[in-house]
Amino acid sequence: MMSEIKIHEVGLRDGLQNESKILPTQNKIEWAEKLAQSGIDILQIGSFVHPTKMPQMADTDEILEYFKSHKPTVTLSALVLNEKGLERAFASQVDLICMGVSASETHSQKNTGMSVSNALERITKMAIDAKSKGSQVQVSVQSAFGCGFEGKISESVVLSIIETYFNSGLMNISLADTAGHAYPQQVERLIQEIYRMNNDAKITVHFHNTYGLGIANCYAAMNCGVQTFETAFGGLGGCPFTKVAAGNVSTEDFAHLLHRNGLRSDIGIERISAVSKFAEAFFEKGLQSYVYNTGIINY
Amino acid sequence: MMSEIKIHEVGLRDGLQNESKILPTQNKIEWAEKLAQSGIDILQIGSFVHPTKMPQMADTDEILEYFKSHKPTVTLSALVLNEKGLERAFASQVDLICMGVSASETHSQKNTGMSVSNALERITKMAIDAKSKGSQVQVSVQSAFGCGFEGKISESVVLSIIETYFNSGLMNISLADTAGHAYPQQVERLIQEIYRMNNDAKITVHFHNTYGLGIANCYAAMNCGVQTFETAFGGLGGCPFTKVAAGNVSTEDFAHLLHRNGLRSDIGIERISAVSKFAEAFFEKGLQSYVYNTGIINY
Repeated sequence: MMSEIKIHEVGLRDGLQNESKILPTQNKIEWAEKLAQSGIDILQIGSFVHPTKMPQMADTDEILEYFKSHKPTVTLSALVLNEKGLERAFASQVDLICMGVSASETHSQKNTGMSVSNALERITKMAIDAKSKGSQVQVSVQSAFGCGFEGKISESVVLSIIETYFNSGLMNISLADTAGHAYPQQVERLIQEIYRMNNDAKITVHFHNTYGLGIANCYAAMNCGVQTFETAFGGLGGCPFTKVAAGNVSTEDFAHLLHRNGLRSDIGIERISAVSKFAEAFFEKGLQSYVYNTGIINY
Repeated sequence: MMSEIKIHEVGLRDGLQNESKILPTQNKIEWAEKLAQSGIDILQIGSFVHPTKMPQMADTDEILEYFKSHKPTVTLSALVLNEKGLERAFASQVDLICMGVSASETHSQKNTGMSVSNALERITKMAIDAKSKGSQVQVSVQSAFGCGFEGKISESVVLSIIETYFNSGLMNISLADTAGHAYPQQVERLIQEIYRMNNDAKITVHFHNTYGLGIANCYAAMNCGVQTFETAFGGLGGCPFTKVAAGNVSTEDFAHLLHRNGLRSDIGIERISAVSKFAEAFFEKGLQSYVYNTGIINY
């Protein structure tokens, strides 16, 4: 099962949205092409959000337009937040449309201006719409393991959101640890519970490294049978609408863990690190990736 | 079982020996006293090594002399490298004497000038001697998961060293990942194999964070039933006699993982971080501890 581990590279979305300096479109296309050639499986191009709210993502349509005629071999994904964004996603012909709700009322209000239940109703409708139009869809639960504002998030709230997804035929779900509060025992507990609810669930996980547990959480999820992992090159990232969030699990570090275990040797860590190097230079900051900074073990 | 997790704080030895600036004895005593009051279980005071070889450890006898009349509530440990050091350890009345061999021929030669088998014979004799004199003894295997010089270390070499320990009645063993090459699946495999050899083994693990896998490796070891973890305040450390080693797993990060899981709430992370703060100021360098830099989750 572990041999089928997949990487969903989210640095171009979750990484870049967290930087105030805006990457020019031409560079973003170059970085995307390099990442697509690295052997990762799904590449998140950006999000369909209003450009005044997040100017870093203003060129998502343009980049996907470019890739219509320069189709890479990876699955392309993008995040949508509302119906307007969903229309843009349809027009872009992006392969995989990602959307989600937060399990934290405070985070949901701050992020969307809606309660969890209102957001859930809206997102579920959008997801069903996207599926019916033939798109691949991933629905997520943000703040699934804890919230920077509220602290503890009840597992029953998370499970009830997921039950709504399942009842709507949405089996491709992502659990996002927006604030980095997850710990491995909790990850195992929640994931085992979700598989008990529906063994056909296709679970993706997304961990932030705020308290240094990102890779340990990935390992715990892997042990439970999770096959898809959202990570960011160079460990970039951090949600701008939460408190004290640190970067994502670094793609290089996660791919290195896979290589150490004899898995996914087709993923070229040096190709990912080449993009991180551009990012380090462009954003003029050090990166939170061990393997990017140390190099790889070569045996 | 997990409720019995113990922390062996090694920062005063493995951390300080890696810094060229020498901490004055009076400060070292103050740091040791603060660490002893933090709730950790075993406190490594230093090593009995020739002062010209490692001047940072020259005051180990003096500090243990001080603690004879200022007995802390924790177990005190020290590392010995040879018979001369062992005599000093006896005189110091330290509670727990630690010693070990490397599983890597190159590392063993560079570190001790001896082959693995010669070092093993010598250390085993010393350990039996120490046990017979009533000391608690811990015998380790360094480079147990890989070597910065040699790369892969055969599991059979590690297991054969451990078999020699077991055959000599030495059940208190430590597996040290000197170069930071360990990955969690390997950790589980090796530890399960050791417990299969002898279910009475008392296993300690010691991970360095070179490739970002330290905490994940701790989690894997915990899952196999390992109860004692060697960590360093602020994530200080790194063996001076190996290539590309990074710091130890940070005590704060590891204790935080335990707290998140409802364990060892008696350990005061802020007391450990207070010592890390001294270290950050004294050595004038940033520390590789997430929780030290971010703070703790308080629920």
